[in-house]
Amino acid sequence: MDEYYMNRALKEAKKGRGRTSPNPCVGAVIVKNGKPVATGYHKKAGTPHAEIHALQKAGEHARGAILYVTLEPCSHTGKTPPCCRAIVDAGITQVVIGMLDPNPLVNGGGVRYLQDHGVEVAGPVLEKKCFELNRPFIKMITTGLPFVVMKAGLSLDGKLNFQQGMGGAVTGNEVKRKVHRMRDQYDAILVGIETVMVDNPALTTRIPGKKGRDPVRIILDSHLRIDERATVLKQKSAAPTWIFCLDSADPVKVARLRDRGVHIFFVGPGEQGLDLAEVLKRTAERGCLSILVEGGGHIHGSFLKSKLVDRACLFYAPVFAGNNGVSTVIGLTAKDRKGAVSLTGTMIRRIGEDVMITGDIVYR
Amino acid sequence: MDEYYMNRALKEAKKGRGRTSPNPCVGAVIVKNGKPVATGYHKKAGTPHAEIHALQKAGEHARGAILYVTLEPCSHTGKTPPCCRAIVDAGITQVVIGMLDPNPLVNGGGVRYLQDHGVEVAGPVLEKKCFELNRPFIKMITTGLPFVVMKAGLSLDGKLNFQQGMGGAVTGNEVKRKVHRMRDQYDAILVGIETVMVDNPALTTRIPGKKGRDPVRIILDSHLRIDERATVLKQKSAAPTWIFCLDSADPVKVARLRDRGVHIFFVGPGEQGLDLAEVLKRTAERGCLSILVEGGGHIHGSFLKSKLVDRACLFYAPVFAGNNGVSTVIGLTAKDRKGAVSLTGTMIRRIGEDVMITGDIVYR
Repeated sequence: MDEYYMNRALKEAKKGRGRTSPNPCVGAVIVKNGKPVATGYHKKAGTPHAEIHALQKAGEHARGAILYVTLEPCSHTGKTPPCCRAIVDAGITQVVIGMLDPNPLVNGGGVRYLQDHGVEVAGPVLEKKCFELNRPFIKMITTGLPFVVMKAGLSLDGKLNFQQGMGGAVTGNEVKRKVHRMRDQYDAILVGIETVMVDNPALTTRIPGKKGRDPVRIILDSHLRIDERATVLKQKSAAPTWIFCLDSADPVKVARLRDRGVHIFFVGPGEQGLDLAEVLKRTAERGCLSILVEGGGHIHGSFLKSKLVDRACLFYAPVFAGNNGVSTVIGLTAKDRKGAVSLTGTMIRRIGEDVMITGDIVYR
Repeated sequence: MDEYYMNRALKEAKKGRGRTSPNPCVGAVIVKNGKPVATGYHKKAGTPHAEIHALQKAGEHARGAILYVTLEPCSHTGKTPPCCRAIVDAGITQVVIGMLDPNPLVNGGGVRYLQDHGVEVAGPVLEKKCFELNRPFIKMITTGLPFVVMKAGLSLDGKLNFQQGMGGAVTGNEVKRKVHRMRDQYDAILVGIETVMVDNPALTTRIPGKKGRDPVRIILDSHLRIDERATVLKQKSAAPTWIFCLDSADPVKVARLRDRGVHIFFVGPGEQGLDLAEVLKRTAERGCLSILVEGGGHIHGSFLKSKLVDRACLFYAPVFAGNNGVSTVIGLTAKDRKGAVSLTGTMIRRIGEDVMITGDIVYR
């Protein structure tokens, strides 16, 4: 039964995916006398937490009820008052949690507060699922860096396209739709200047029949080579475009781009021209918990070489691109299997005619 | 019911896989009064066909019975007398076939013979499965060429190894076991001289706890560069080693190798040094219906470029090999998706930690 209602709470939580950063996605269900009486989820940072929504909907029914919540309720005052007090005040007698708050500073604090105030606490229930849902939040709270996912569409022989300098995807339309659904749930999307020059992408979220939410568009462009007529700079989007470059970039061009609303950040030199760890830190500071790195080959190679990627999401089209295509990971090398960057916990799925392989990255 | 017994017949047929060339694999089940009374399969060219085994086992029970057979019975006298006459003589009243004989010269001849002699004929039943089982035989009988399967073990970024000139597989042990089970069912296995020099493979079938059958070992070696101490030349195996080279190869070395029992074939020049279509034709003439092409990159590229591959069987290890690995298909190029060699009817399977993607090759 606990798992049943935790799954309901997870379903609630997922409604907030891609909208809650820098907060986690959280869902809650209140159950009284074996019946659900209210649900709630966290919609957006600065607005009430999932528990509060559920408690408000439940009203007097909360008294003597069980609260299922995907994450340990907060006991500290952030932008909103702590949930633990509201839970106690509402008369909830048992709280079942999906996982503890991963923040090492508060870990277990919510549980203790509840127990100290006579509320029984059970769990964790479906911890792995709850953990998986908030990978970005957990990564950030424990490391200060965003959760980075490498996304690439490849030929069977591992090429990003058919001809050097040629744009367009090797994968099919169903992968395209899938990628747009992914963009809708990531805080930012990152590409290298080569990709902007070759593909001239919009980097927005387009989902047929649904209002997608655009991620922040991040472009790595050490020498600020971007064409000022590039499509990515012309988007009518609620999300901004951020360009990271070296401080040696042409100040006149910097000023012109800033005038147009483009955010320009100067970072130090490093792999692929820029210090990628610094890029990620600066991105995290601005509230981006998750980044979808969409290439190209130099970017993927540099991010992996810098050990900054958490997960890979690879789409294989059933074609051979051959010799003239761009390699997936440029600049990365491996002496042997033991020394190679690898994936663990892989999942395989057919997406239209293509095959998706995802997994968590393991560095040696 | 027809499908049930045809599946039984298919199961019988599969017992002969890899052992019947240049004949097809065929299985038969005789059913009387709703009960199977005998089964049989074709074991080896020159020995009785599946129907004969089943009829002999059934004896008098064959009279008035139904015969399920995966392939239209033969009506011509080959190394053995025609099955159709034996079926009529045994008193079988109905024959259910899996598919017609694909040989354009005899197609339907067996069915007509049976009908002319008062035997009812039904089918095809499970035609696709029966067809799939005998792809090599069908390819040969319709084109004069063997069925060619490209097999490669790859990294996620499409490399055959981690470092140029480095041997060993990128894929894991379960793929290795799977490949040996495949070798057991192919008439020949083909590699380029580069693979022999780098990997120094045995190219034999090793299946734990089972007596595997070795395929013919084919090496493409235009200039006869093979090291005479190579492991592949030292195998105690029922199957021979065949080397294809240009007629400009050193005649003294040719003589020495022939003395050791190695078969040397001279073919004309072409892709990858040799005329690959001629290599296949010569192989087919010697009774090989199926060839497993195991690489390396030049060989895969050349075979695909020559449009001689029927099927690909790719194993992806969850690792990135990076820049220094050897590409899967060297020498092949594609202008765009429309012009690219692709796969159709793909199947995906997890093999241990690795992922297998198989499919039939489509050329444009």
